[in-house]
Amino acid sequence: MGEFELITNYFSKAGSPRTDVHCGVGDDGAVLQVRDGYDLVVTTDTMVVGTHFFADVDPRALGHKLVAVNVSDLAAMGAEPSWLSLALTVPVIQPDWLSEFAAGLHETAEYFNCQLVGGDTTKGPLSLTMIAKGQVPRGKAIKRSGAKVGDYIYVTGTLGDAALGLRLVQGVQQVSKKHQAHILQRFHYPTARVALGQALRSVASSAMDISDGLAGDIYHILQRSAVGAYIDVQKLPLSQALKDSCDSAQAMQLALSGGEDYELLFTVPDSKRGALDVLLSPYGVPVTCIGRITGQTGKLELKAGEQVFSYQHKGFEHF
Amino acid sequence: MGEFELITNYFSKAGSPRTDVHCGVGDDGAVLQVRDGYDLVVTTDTMVVGTHFFADVDPRALGHKLVAVNVSDLAAMGAEPSWLSLALTVPVIQPDWLSEFAAGLHETAEYFNCQLVGGDTTKGPLSLTMIAKGQVPRGKAIKRSGAKVGDYIYVTGTLGDAALGLRLVQGVQQVSKKHQAHILQRFHYPTARVALGQALRSVASSAMDISDGLAGDIYHILQRSAVGAYIDVQKLPLSQALKDSCDSAQAMQLALSGGEDYELLFTVPDSKRGALDVLLSPYGVPVTCIGRITGQTGKLELKAGEQVFSYQHKGFEHF
Repeated sequence: MGEFELITNYFSKAGSPRTDVHCGVGDDGAVLQVRDGYDLVVTTDTMVVGTHFFADVDPRALGHKLVAVNVSDLAAMGAEPSWLSLALTVPVIQPDWLSEFAAGLHETAEYFNCQLVGGDTTKGPLSLTMIAKGQVPRGKAIKRSGAKVGDYIYVTGTLGDAALGLRLVQGVQQVSKKHQAHILQRFHYPTARVALGQALRSVASSAMDISDGLAGDIYHILQRSAVGAYIDVQKLPLSQALKDSCDSAQAMQLALSGGEDYELLFTVPDSKRGALDVLLSPYGVPVTCIGRITGQTGKLELKAGEQVFSYQHKGFEHF
Repeated sequence: MGEFELITNYFSKAGSPRTDVHCGVGDDGAVLQVRDGYDLVVTTDTMVVGTHFFADVDPRALGHKLVAVNVSDLAAMGAEPSWLSLALTVPVIQPDWLSEFAAGLHETAEYFNCQLVGGDTTKGPLSLTMIAKGQVPRGKAIKRSGAKVGDYIYVTGTLGDAALGLRLVQGVQQVSKKHQAHILQRFHYPTARVALGQALRSVASSAMDISDGLAGDIYHILQRSAVGAYIDVQKLPLSQALKDSCDSAQAMQLALSGGEDYELLFTVPDSKRGALDVLLSPYGVPVTCIGRITGQTGKLELKAGEQVFSYQHKGFEHF
């Protein structure tokens, strides 16, 4: 099977067909119509075997995750996902594997109303790069740089579940039967907070998604906004599964430094907190206020209630 | 050095700063303003060590080539290059290598007036994926699907030089001293026919770039346009360097099946041939008519003057 047949067989019809795709898979490039008055938002995420996933990962889950982590970046910018490109590098063509991977990718793309519009397939060590493209009303993208002193800090969902899921998959931690499905779901099938991200455009001063752990990722907002923050770790949203599976020290560690939750971290000015409450109601996504932005540029203070919370963050470092 | 420092050190300022980049490297996504009345064109190309380049390749040339092959795809669509994203996977951080690679990328991006706006850096076997984004007046992208029976077939530049360059680098073929620099330049520093590609919007019925050899690549136009073609191999444009380095059979073989020339292959209706001649004059790029489109769907006839030219194409197959 050549590259061309591979593309045709597995990828030429992935996702939701969109009328704004004037030329999709199979030409030198995709031709896409960005809506008038909208900005284009582009994200890129690479997943390499051995670094980001195990060689024996369920390919369907991998297809899902690749789309979800990219779409999560779009959500963090307040953008509406529209189009996907895939750079797929595989050592050999395994039809069963590719078929399952494409199915996972297809389902998730369709769920988010995205169409796969192109990419490249090459031979080499297993590696997947996805490029997601979305649209946001002009000037309305939510950046990391907009947080102001006094803003309230929020996170969506619960933290630490994906890191616990990784430990479960690795066999280094036990999780009781009743929680296993939830924890594995959180690890293998992360949620991208797309609808909520778009709703936040009118209230959030900054936003990002949490991929490498809250305690490390928040520094991107602090640096780009030239502010500091304090977080009350007692307010961190933890799932019942996490609380039942870990002692409190480990729960804190997973919630603060565990990666791959893909929840949104965002800041809201005091004047918009009422609007936030109103707009949240239709989404059914728990949102928790965990702290505030301070004027101490680049400094993160962790507290447990009124006490200083001593903590050494060890985030994921590639190199 | 972490991922964040790596990005900051080498890639945060690559290419020409553009006023349509509202958010570049360092956020969850790039925010880009597509011009009103224009379509977005997106291309993706991956280069993997051992498959697309040698481990000891000059990193500066590699940086150039990565940009050029992507921009060449934009050129083939008639698009104006605007923005680049880079997914960079490296096994270890080698500052000298990265610095040279970034310099090659930077120079070439700047030459084409593109800005690097984001991407991802990960650890793993050396692999580079670039995503180039360009703009084309709405509805004016040149696709592979527009060729019609009777259209004339053209190529830019000369064919086979890059394949000869590969053989020279591999040490399997000699090239006389006076031609070496030219041939190596053609292999390491391919040209993207960007200005010409944009000019072709008003005259070409279809276009693509030649990356895997004319005799294989042309089938993409034949299939998508549901047409056939004949090509007179005596008309194939060959450089003096190629003619001096190969016998005629090998010259034909390299010109027809050699990859990586990144010249444009395009078709023009009879009624537009005069317009083509007029618009070509400012570009200084040789353009050669090599055949015509026929009604025999999917069939390529090769002729040498009036004779049938018997030829077995062996293109590059990844798998």
